[in-house]
Amino acid sequence: KRKNQLSVEEYVAGILEGNRTILSKAVTLVESSKPEHQKIAQQIILKCLPYSGKSIRIGITGVPGVGKSTFIESTGKYITSLGHKLAVLAIDPSSERSKGSILGDKTRMEELSIDPNAYIRPSPSAGSLGGVARKTRETIILCEAAGFDVIFIETVGVGQSETVVHSMVDFFLLLMLSGAGDELQGIKRGIMEMADAITINKADGDNVDRAEMARVQYMSALQLFPPTDSGWKPKVLTCSAYKKIGIDKIWKTINDYLSHVNQNGYFQFKRSEQSKFWMYETINDQLKSNFYQNPKIKEILGNFEGQVLNEELSSFVAAKELLETYYQSQKVKE
Amino acid sequence: KRKNQLSVEEYVAGILEGNRTILSKAVTLVESSKPEHQKIAQQIILKCLPYSGKSIRIGITGVPGVGKSTFIESTGKYITSLGHKLAVLAIDPSSERSKGSILGDKTRMEELSIDPNAYIRPSPSAGSLGGVARKTRETIILCEAAGFDVIFIETVGVGQSETVVHSMVDFFLLLMLSGAGDELQGIKRGIMEMADAITINKADGDNVDRAEMARVQYMSALQLFPPTDSGWKPKVLTCSAYKKIGIDKIWKTINDYLSHVNQNGYFQFKRSEQSKFWMYETINDQLKSNFYQNPKIKEILGNFEGQVLNEELSSFVAAKELLETYYQSQKVKE
Repeated sequence: KRKNQLSVEEYVAGILEGNRTILSKAVTLVESSKPEHQKIAQQIILKCLPYSGKSIRIGITGVPGVGKSTFIESTGKYITSLGHKLAVLAIDPSSERSKGSILGDKTRMEELSIDPNAYIRPSPSAGSLGGVARKTRETIILCEAAGFDVIFIETVGVGQSETVVHSMVDFFLLLMLSGAGDELQGIKRGIMEMADAITINKADGDNVDRAEMARVQYMSALQLFPPTDSGWKPKVLTCSAYKKIGIDKIWKTINDYLSHVNQNGYFQFKRSEQSKFWMYETINDQLKSNFYQNPKIKEILGNFEGQVLNEELSSFVAAKELLETYYQSQKVKE
Repeated sequence: KRKNQLSVEEYVAGILEGNRTILSKAVTLVESSKPEHQKIAQQIILKCLPYSGKSIRIGITGVPGVGKSTFIESTGKYITSLGHKLAVLAIDPSSERSKGSILGDKTRMEELSIDPNAYIRPSPSAGSLGGVARKTRETIILCEAAGFDVIFIETVGVGQSETVVHSMVDFFLLLMLSGAGDELQGIKRGIMEMADAITINKADGDNVDRAEMARVQYMSALQLFPPTDSGWKPKVLTCSAYKKIGIDKIWKTINDYLSHVNQNGYFQFKRSEQSKFWMYETINDQLKSNFYQNPKIKEILGNFEGQVLNEELSSFVAAKELLETYYQSQKVKE
C-alpha cells in the first residue's frame, strides 16, 4: 500500500462521513479504467450499497441554449436552501461532447459550485455511452452514501444519452423554450414522451406570454399521449431560471410526483426494474464488447458490413458467418 | 433428396415465377427451426436477394378493436385494383398473442384472401420476438422476389413489436379511433412519434365530426414534435375502412411520402441502415442467446437477479460474476 493511498475501509468511512475530498477520490477510482482501481472501486461500492438509494434522482435534459446551467444553478440553490444536499452529475460521452458541453464549465454555476451542500461532478470524459452510464450509476451510489439526498443527472437532449439517463432516474424533466420552432430541431424524437414534466424556460420579460402559450399547447398535446406506466399525468410548467421565477413550482411538481408514485408503489417498482435492467445491460454490453473487440472480427467486420449495405449478402447470412468465425477463434485460443 | 422435396433451384425458379404454392413452402422452410430446413432456406434467400427490395414496405399498427383487419381488407383491395400485387404479413409473437390475435382469422378478410393479387401469411407462431422478426424479414425478401410490390406488415400496438416492425418498413401507419380517451389505454408510449401517418378509422355515420375533431387535435399535437429524420411531416387522416371512405387519400399520402424520400435520398439511406441494423441485431441476439441458454447461467441467474432486486448486490458486481462464470464454463467445454 502506497503512502497517500486509502484502504477500502477508509474510503467507505470517509464517504459515510460526507467527506467530499474522499468522495471525489472514490469517484475517480470508479471512473478509472485501470483494473486495480476498478477492483477497489467495486469493493467501495459494495460497502456503500446499504447506505444508498435514499435520494430523489432527477434527470434533466434539453438542447444547448435552453439554459440548463442557469436552471441547475437556480433550482439547485433553491433545493439546498430547503436543507437538502444536492449532487449534480452529468452523462456526456465524448462522442456527443461536441454537440454541447455540459458541466465542463463550473464557472457557469457560480453560486452552486461554492455551496457546501452541493457537489458538482462533471461527466467522466472517456469511453462509450455504456461505460459512462455505468460510471455515473455507480457514482450515484457513492453520492447517496455520502448523504446527498437529491441527485441531478444532466444530459443534452440530442443523442442516445437521454434513454440511458431515463433508465437511472426517478423523475425526468425536459427543458424547452417557447415557440415550438427552432429549438425542436435539436431534440430527438421520443424524448417528449419520456418526460414526467416539461418546463418552458426563459419565461420572463417579453417572453412571458409566448411561454404561457407554449405551455398550453404542450399541455393539450400531452393529453393525446398514451398514459404513463406510473399513472402520473406529465405536467407542463414555465419558469425563468435567470430571474428565479417558478422554481418553487417545479420542486413542488417533483414532490407531487413522488407522493403519487410512493402511494401506488411505482417508485420502488421502477427502482427494482432499473437495477435489474442494469445487470442485464452490463452483461449484454460486455458480451458485445468481447465480440467486436475480437481481432479476427475487427479485421473482417467492415467487409461484411459493406456487402450487406450493397445487398450482396443478407443481413442474416453475414451475421451467421461472423458468429461462426468468432466462436471458432475462441476455440483456438483456449 | 426425398420425393416431393424441391431443390433450391426449383424453389427459386418457382418463387421468381410467382408460384404461390412454392412461395408458401419456402416461407415454411424460413419459419422452421430445423437446421436442415434453415440451411435450404438461407440458400433460397441468398438467390432471391438480387430480385428483392423493389417493393413498398408498410407497417400498420393499432390496438385491437381499431379495425385493422377491415382496414387491410379495404386498403388491400384498393391497392390490388390499381394493379399492384400485395403481400400481407404479420409480427405477432406468441408471447403477445393473447393481447389481440391478428391475421389468425383469414375469414375476416373475405375478399382479400381470395384475391389472386394478394398473398396473406399469418405470423410465424413460435419463438421470441427476435426470431419472429428475423423470419418476417426473410419472408419479405421471398415475397418481393415473387413479384409482390406492396408489403403490409401488421402488428398490434401494445408490445415491443412496433419498434421491430418500424425497423423493417419504409412507412409506418398508426390506426386510431376518434376520442382520445379509452383506446389510448392500450397503445405504448413512443409509438405516436414513430408514425409517418396517423389514420383515424371508423369516420362514418355519427362519428364523422368526432373523427374530424380528433384529426385536428392530433395534427396540432404532431406539430409540437421534433422533426423526423426523413424531413417528412407526419400526416393525420380520417377514413372508414368499413364504408371504404378515405382509402384513396391514404394511398396518396403513402405515395407522397415515397416521392419525398426518393427525392431526398432518405429511402435508400433508410433501407441500407436497416440492413446494417439487422446484421448487428442478429449477432447481438445470438451472443445473448448463447449466454442465457448456458446451463450454468440458467442455474444461477435467478439467484443473482434476486439479490440485485433486494439490493444485496450491485447490478455491476452481479453482471461481472455471471460473465466470469460464463467464460469459465466456455473454457471447460472446449
